Amino acid sequence: MKQLRYWFTLVFMLVQAKPALSQASGSMRIDPTFWWVGMKNPRLQLLVHSPGIAGSTATLAAYPGVTLEGVQKLESPNYLLLNLSISASAAPGQLKLEFKGKKKLSYSYELRARNTAPDRVQGINTSDFIYLLMPDRFANGDPTNDVVKGMHEASVNRGELTARHGGDLKGIEDHFDYLKELGVTTIWPTPLVENNQPKTSYHGYALTDYYKIDPRYGSNDDYAGFVQRAHQQGLKVVHDVVLNHMGSENYLFRDQPAKDWFNQWPSFTRSNYADAVLTDPHAAPAEREQHEKGWFDLTMPDVNQSNPLVATYLIQNFIWWVEYTGLDAFRIDTYPYSDRQFLMRFGDEVQAQFPRLGMVGECTSIGVAQQAYFARNILPPVDGFKSNLPGVLDFQAFFAITDAFTKEPGWNEGINKLYYVLQQDWLYEDATRNVVFLDNHDQSRFLSVVGEDQAKLRLGLAWLLTTRGIPQLYYGTEVLMKNFTNPDGRLREDFPGGWPGDQQNLFTAAGRTPAQQAMHDYVRTLAQYRRSHPVLQTGQLTQYLPGEGVYTYFRHNDKGEAVMVVLNSANAERSLDPAKYAANLRGFRSARDVATGTVLPDLNTLKVPAKTAWVLELQK
Amino acid sequence: MKQLRYWFTLVFMLVQAKPALSQASGSMRIDPTFWWVGMKNPRLQLLVHSPGIAGSTATLAAYPGVTLEGVQKLESPNYLLLNLSISASAAPGQLKLEFKGKKKLSYSYELRARNTAPDRVQGINTSDFIYLLMPDRFANGDPTNDVVKGMHEASVNRGELTARHGGDLKGIEDHFDYLKELGVTTIWPTPLVENNQPKTSYHGYALTDYYKIDPRYGSNDDYAGFVQRAHQQGLKVVHDVVLNHMGSENYLFRDQPAKDWFNQWPSFTRSNYADAVLTDPHAAPAEREQHEKGWFDLTMPDVNQSNPLVATYLIQNFIWWVEYTGLDAFRIDTYPYSDRQFLMRFGDEVQAQFPRLGMVGECTSIGVAQQAYFARNILPPVDGFKSNLPGVLDFQAFFAITDAFTKEPGWNEGINKLYYVLQQDWLYEDATRNVVFLDNHDQSRFLSVVGEDQAKLRLGLAWLLTTRGIPQLYYGTEVLMKNFTNPDGRLREDFPGGWPGDQQNLFTAAGRTPAQQAMHDYVRTLAQYRRSHPVLQTGQLTQYLPGEGVYTYFRHNDKGEAVMVVLNSANAERSLDPAKYAANLRGFRSARDVATGTVLPDLNTLKVPAKTAWVLELQK
Repeated sequence: MKQLRYWFTLVFMLVQAKPALSQASGSMRIDPTFWWVGMKNPRLQLLVHSPGIAGSTATLAAYPGVTLEGVQKLESPNYLLLNLSISASAAPGQLKLEFKGKKKLSYSYELRARNTAPDRVQGINTSDFIYLLMPDRFANGDPTNDVVKGMHEASVNRGELTARHGGDLKGIEDHFDYLKELGVTTIWPTPLVENNQPKTSYHGYALTDYYKIDPRYGSNDDYAGFVQRAHQQGLKVVHDVVLNHMGSENYLFRDQPAKDWFNQWPSFTRSNYADAVLTDPHAAPAEREQHEKGWFDLTMPDVNQSNPLVATYLIQNFIWWVEYTGLDAFRIDTYPYSDRQFLMRFGDEVQAQFPRLGMVGECTSIGVAQQAYFARNILPPVDGFKSNLPGVLDFQAFFAITDAFTKEPGWNEGINKLYYVLQQDWLYEDATRNVVFLDNHDQSRFLSVVGEDQAKLRLGLAWLLTTRGIPQLYYGTEVLMKNFTNPDGRLREDFPGGWPGDQQNLFTAAGRTPAQQAMHDYVRTLAQYRRSHPVLQTGQLTQYLPGEGVYTYFRHNDKGEAVMVVLNSANAERSLDPAKYAANLRGFRSARDVATGTVLPDLNTLKVPAKTAWVLELQK
Repeated sequence: MKQLRYWFTLVFMLVQAKPALSQASGSMRIDPTFWWVGMKNPRLQLLVHSPGIAGSTATLAAYPGVTLEGVQKLESPNYLLLNLSISASAAPGQLKLEFKGKKKLSYSYELRARNTAPDRVQGINTSDFIYLLMPDRFANGDPTNDVVKGMHEASVNRGELTARHGGDLKGIEDHFDYLKELGVTTIWPTPLVENNQPKTSYHGYALTDYYKIDPRYGSNDDYAGFVQRAHQQGLKVVHDVVLNHMGSENYLFRDQPAKDWFNQWPSFTRSNYADAVLTDPHAAPAEREQHEKGWFDLTMPDVNQSNPLVATYLIQNFIWWVEYTGLDAFRIDTYPYSDRQFLMRFGDEVQAQFPRLGMVGECTSIGVAQQAYFARNILPPVDGFKSNLPGVLDFQAFFAITDAFTKEPGWNEGINKLYYVLQQDWLYEDATRNVVFLDNHDQSRFLSVVGEDQAKLRLGLAWLLTTRGIPQLYYGTEVLMKNFTNPDGRLREDFPGGWPGDQQNLFTAAGRTPAQQAMHDYVRTLAQYRRSHPVLQTGQLTQYLPGEGVYTYFRHNDKGEAVMVVLNSANAERSLDPAKYAANLRGFRSARDVATGTVLPDLNTLKVPAKTAWVLELQK
């Protein structure tokens, strides 16, 4: 997201010029838009939005098991908060809410029965292989929703990097088979929730309606169906959660319930993007405040989660999405930018409701200790914060894999960094819950980073699919998509073949060049092997100190299965000393290279060619 | 020490060829050589060494308050262990020990009264400025002890990097005034204890007699007097402690009490020098063992501290040196290489006896978390180890200051590393107990590292004398001594003027070039300012996120004293935004540059020239 912050200086001026608490038009809206009986937490906070509603008296018609415990006014006359209590015995049905003021309004609020199908909310773990895609850029399955009249961006222009291109939920669903064949188990689309912003709305991180899928991707029901059909196909879905900020076109910002729902500044103030200040005992208080309350971008107001009403609003919303769709995991955007007391409450309440839900946070921190601070770790609380997040997007491992094949090896440099980043796993409660990746929608594509050297991409992929943690691939890596950040749009290009009439179709073997096919085969072979060999999922990892540009590790389990991984980053063949690995080679005589099928008949002679990854299945 | 390990492959062959448990010649020896009444721990383990002594029966003549609780044989016939108990009521005097075997031997063992002078064992803290020197290379105060007949290296050759040069205790003492004038408060000589090795004995880390100062430096009493006279002059002394290994010429190795006093290998096996394996949850057991038990060098047998008898021997020895001399602090060599259970016991027992004693360990780890693991920290025990060491030699800060002026600034690169290394202070119990440095006897001299750019050396020195922790200078830095490691001898050159007849004498202003004098003035000015301004010792440090190659921090206290430090690593002038530092500048109108005396009349205009350090005393 970082690069975005340099755009649209003007937009902010516009946003700021609007009155903070204007009269809203239109009819009544209540968030959450509906709810369920039988939730863990009996309390429900309804945010009622309607012009002048604060002047009304709210009542709830008698409903067994449901009580209106309180009504709360906010700074704006256009809001009321209703605090309901829903007992375990309450039945599904329609609550009748009445608002008596200048005129009388009534609202029928739906309480649904929960869906208890066993394939819902499966969580994620090391058996998964996540495919990260941008829904606007992957495939356009329904051209009729490309342009939605009345939305700020009501056009499509595939020639423009920052414009909308028309991809949608149907487009992803049309390629479930492609993903399954590749070995993918889990789809992570960047946010699907409405981003009705005037510009660059395709990126999805400026939510304008917390309760609505962007109609250019499909409807809410389409998304619920998408998750259901993914599950039927054996695929899981990760939901991209944005807690720290919202889009400036969100009705909650345009007609603010109260000024303290946002972190307000006298003049626009960015975050300093350095979560280091949060733990730094020497930090300047002003720099801490700037990180916590500074805005992520001009068009992304910073939400004040230290306001408990706001916290409840957010927590309910994301619980709502899980219960509504049965999605499997949250990827939480800009995790360290949120109020840390709120994060603990968010994690507690969400996990109390959905113990199986996967949760992984985006932490672009500097250093493993700082990153571990934002996950479940062995540390005592620091600055009042003890994370309950199971895992993080492992940016430290990402920094390491980037250096591994772009910098010369040294004590802690180049490929040796791969050793040292895992070495620090002792700081986590369980580092295997982290998601590892070569690149993503905010980072230059790995193939470009390694100078378009496909041998190095293979090395990266071999690591990705055999190291500890949950591997994540960024869409198109398997068919050699490339490009650097700046502008970000370059690395968010359309997947060729995703649009009707595309000249190239890389979804099919026939459409790929031999090089693209070879890389696709490489990913598929390793991913399918990983999928069918639990040793690469849950097997113990034993790593050896790297030397001469070579990093060697084993995955092994007590069933006698073992895989030896050798990554030779050097431009020359390297001979390995089998004695060094004796404990891990004991009992094995030969090996099969999983990627090529080549058999190494003698483990006493291990000569790994230049710039080569070996993923060796050890054999007795 | 690392570079030494590449030398003398032959010596090891020689060492190994000797019988492990040969008959010793000479008369009886008992370690500790004497002891005291009134020590915290009433137990005393005497190691008796005499040919065939194990065949004797040991008795103690009646002595009020002292009991011989047990006698223990070891594997070698030439040793006996006597376990004494010395009650609080015992008086100083001579214990009469008798040994009845083939012949009858007697030994008069001295119990001394403790010295309770208040200036003994002062500890070290942030008010100190440590001067690290190599006693063989600093100054030769007593040419009569240069060559000691009967020792393996009984010659001096100043033209040879690895030979002895003749420096000694008297030489250091002759320059107490020089050091005091420079602002030094504390002297850390590399080990003074006997190193009677055939080659490179000057480095001092291969102890051959734990109870004896190397006679080429002086006698035991000379050392005790040295400490006493240093204290009289207001100087402290750090004692360099080697726990992990000893010299191969040590009588304990040549005539081993038992094989399990050493970590023995079928063939010579080096440590892998990577303490990372100790905490790495993915480490190969063989690599852990290699770190813990591998030898540091060919001529440095690895002591088996997991043997409790060995542990007691070492702990008693180092307690002995403190009680004997009143020295102020330990610098503990290769701290992570020692057995960690032993280290905890060592720390507990030494600190129980001498609560004021300073202790700082050498940890050349990778990463702050790993380094913090070896100091008192906020972490739970990991792998059974919870360090009780107050502080460490801060190699992470050293890596940062090295990069600060040799690499381009980046998110976490170049000068920005200085920010990030302190940012991680949250992992320590108290990082101000760490010793910071620009270089030392194992590292290329800072002036050479920064391309002999004196502006960069000034930047480094300004940081050294104003950042948190206890600053340490390596001898000669103040007069522009330079050179890279490899061979180490190059950075261990003689201090010009330390030897009678030296052409140059940099101890006197007259002997220095203008550039040498200017750097000497710079160190002296900052060190003396630091010494007289507690704000630089104990004042809070507040640091700001670096930008454009500039790192800014403040030292301030609640007495209204404040120093602003600006380090501009860039090759261009940089304008600072006073608003950024408003909280720290509030109440101040002008500033005085401590190094130059220049006054900055207006804090609203802060333009720091290229490659310049500002140490600004803020004024109202």
